[in-house]
Amino acid sequence: MTSNERLEGDNEAILIIASSEIDSNLYFATGFLAPDPFIYLEVEGEKILLMSDLEIDRARKEARVDTTLSYATYEDRARQEGTEKPRSIDVVNALLRERGVTALLVPESFGIGLADPLREKGYFIRSKREPFFEARTVKTEEEIGLITETLRHTEAVMERAIAILREADVRGGALHWQGEVLTSERLKQVINVALMERECVAQHTIVACGVDACDPHNEGSGTLRAGEAIILDVFPRSSRSRYFADITRTVVKGRAKDSLKRLYETVLEGQEIAFSRIRHGASGQAIHQAILDHFRSKGYETGLQNGRMQGYFHGTGHGLGLDVHEPPRISKMDDTLHSGHAVTVEPGLYYPDLGAVRIEDLVVVTETGCRNLTQFPKELEIP
Amino acid sequence: MTSNERLEGDNEAILIIASSEIDSNLYFATGFLAPDPFIYLEVEGEKILLMSDLEIDRARKEARVDTTLSYATYEDRARQEGTEKPRSIDVVNALLRERGVTALLVPESFGIGLADPLREKGYFIRSKREPFFEARTVKTEEEIGLITETLRHTEAVMERAIAILREADVRGGALHWQGEVLTSERLKQVINVALMERECVAQHTIVACGVDACDPHNEGSGTLRAGEAIILDVFPRSSRSRYFADITRTVVKGRAKDSLKRLYETVLEGQEIAFSRIRHGASGQAIHQAILDHFRSKGYETGLQNGRMQGYFHGTGHGLGLDVHEPPRISKMDDTLHSGHAVTVEPGLYYPDLGAVRIEDLVVVTETGCRNLTQFPKELEIP
Repeated sequence: MTSNERLEGDNEAILIIASSEIDSNLYFATGFLAPDPFIYLEVEGEKILLMSDLEIDRARKEARVDTTLSYATYEDRARQEGTEKPRSIDVVNALLRERGVTALLVPESFGIGLADPLREKGYFIRSKREPFFEARTVKTEEEIGLITETLRHTEAVMERAIAILREADVRGGALHWQGEVLTSERLKQVINVALMERECVAQHTIVACGVDACDPHNEGSGTLRAGEAIILDVFPRSSRSRYFADITRTVVKGRAKDSLKRLYETVLEGQEIAFSRIRHGASGQAIHQAILDHFRSKGYETGLQNGRMQGYFHGTGHGLGLDVHEPPRISKMDDTLHSGHAVTVEPGLYYPDLGAVRIEDLVVVTETGCRNLTQFPKELEIP
Repeated sequence: MTSNERLEGDNEAILIIASSEIDSNLYFATGFLAPDPFIYLEVEGEKILLMSDLEIDRARKEARVDTTLSYATYEDRARQEGTEKPRSIDVVNALLRERGVTALLVPESFGIGLADPLREKGYFIRSKREPFFEARTVKTEEEIGLITETLRHTEAVMERAIAILREADVRGGALHWQGEVLTSERLKQVINVALMERECVAQHTIVACGVDACDPHNEGSGTLRAGEAIILDVFPRSSRSRYFADITRTVVKGRAKDSLKRLYETVLEGQEIAFSRIRHGASGQAIHQAILDHFRSKGYETGLQNGRMQGYFHGTGHGLGLDVHEPPRISKMDDTLHSGHAVTVEPGLYYPDLGAVRIEDLVVVTETGCRNLTQFPKELEIP
């Protein structure tokens, strides 16, 4: 969306000012990780970093850019040009003037605290909606390898979690392990620690049992119980590669009621619908709607019931890479899938009276279908 | 900074649209954690959330706000008012119109991808520089308790790391532990895993030896060696409270050269200068300058030498709380300290020819001085 009309012939440059710890576009553009905001400018194909004294030596070694300049140098220049205490905006201004830039393309997340004063200095700024870098959504084979690497770590740890549920005894309906009641908190800790041993950082891991699991973002708490659905959703980032993985399994310790088995089979059918429809050019919205329709045809309605959302009230999937949620979505929104997109496929059904089921795999979109990166088995009952 | 003049008598509301995982202002305002962006409006003292179907039940239970409204309801309203496919901006618009809001105060990080279309709809938007919520910088006793809790976990794990360095053998200058060469990577892993066991998430932990340590943000790699400075900098976030802690120690396995001992003593003196000057109303800039002057008086110059930054080329300290770096800074910038600020005090000196030293404690500013929250000892040599 454009707020100032761009003039013909303007020398439009890309500008990002952010911390690459938080802003994956900036990390994607530079390959350089820093905790505090820094300045990235792309002008006529030249990738330029403006770095503080603290980061400049490391940036010169690590960043995949053409030119790394000293913030302090341009700060001095801003001072010489009359700004007594230059702020970052004055320093950027000195660089933009040197490069003859008058028009800027920025991500939609570019803060107005920076955009407004730049506009006051006369720059034309337009923002581009995500994906800012189209190339980020289409994964290279190398990127798919990195995502798969994180996924394999995650699957190994999921296997450990399932093994613990298998080892657990049931006493009075409650699971016990290593002489203690087995809680959501304990199992999440085991998962997160095991992933950290593999240099993967897991946060907000979900181990939710029974009614807790009926709220898809409830992380779970308290005693794990036999005969109730337990949703395990694990989505760590590799500290090495910075690529995420994401997997969900639903299990029951002991025997599941028939009503829960039927729910599980229906969610699996929903996943198969997605697998059969995902391909280059497919509409995310159409895939999502087909699953909703299937669930309804099986008698699973979605909507407010007894004052809370029930049924299938989240998206079918999301792109994944340097962020855990990135474009495209397979949801009510009308995104189109492209070959090379890495997306989750995670239908779910949630009814406090019946239980909750979510099953999530990670696939890569191809010309003719999709390739499932996830190898972990799907078995509801754990003996 | 104001880009549209505010009209007298406007009903100015606070608007934040972000993920509270990333935006600590939003988490501070709502106490609600969600991975995807949601909408927060504060109008005439009423705190309002606009939540998706996916999050609304959890938000109603967990969020510390007055009113939680359904995104879907306002989406329908936008549709009824003629927007075929309402985007979040249209949904916000429906809410703002209902509440009679025409002027908005937003954080400086508010994205222009949202601000521009809101301005096109006629809203006056001005942004406020950090700290957006002044109250975030002044910690309550409860918050200081939470920061201290994270710090105690961090100190316990620092103790474990130092114990490993003590247990290590030296063979040909290289540290060995548990039958293997002890590397930066291994020690970082031990630290990060031990913190995860305590529900603290440590990322970018620094264990940097020798020349690596001369770059303050180099995380370190390879063999740890006796007789060289090893900088350990650990700054995890508690998963429970979301509050950070931050500590740095510099150690040498075996004997340190006199030149390194002198560097260490000088950095300690720098820290004492800060401790003696920090109090309510003190200038961060003056404190930072006093340390720089002291270092210079001892012969430790700061600046480019042989093409790389040497001396004291980072800030003395930073505020810490829900973010690891937050206002105020004790640095070249002219921030004023206030009673209740929690700030790090971390002078350092870096010379590839001599070695690197950084020592970091965490203090709370008081009316008359500061209270050091850090209890961990400072000893350069580890036998």
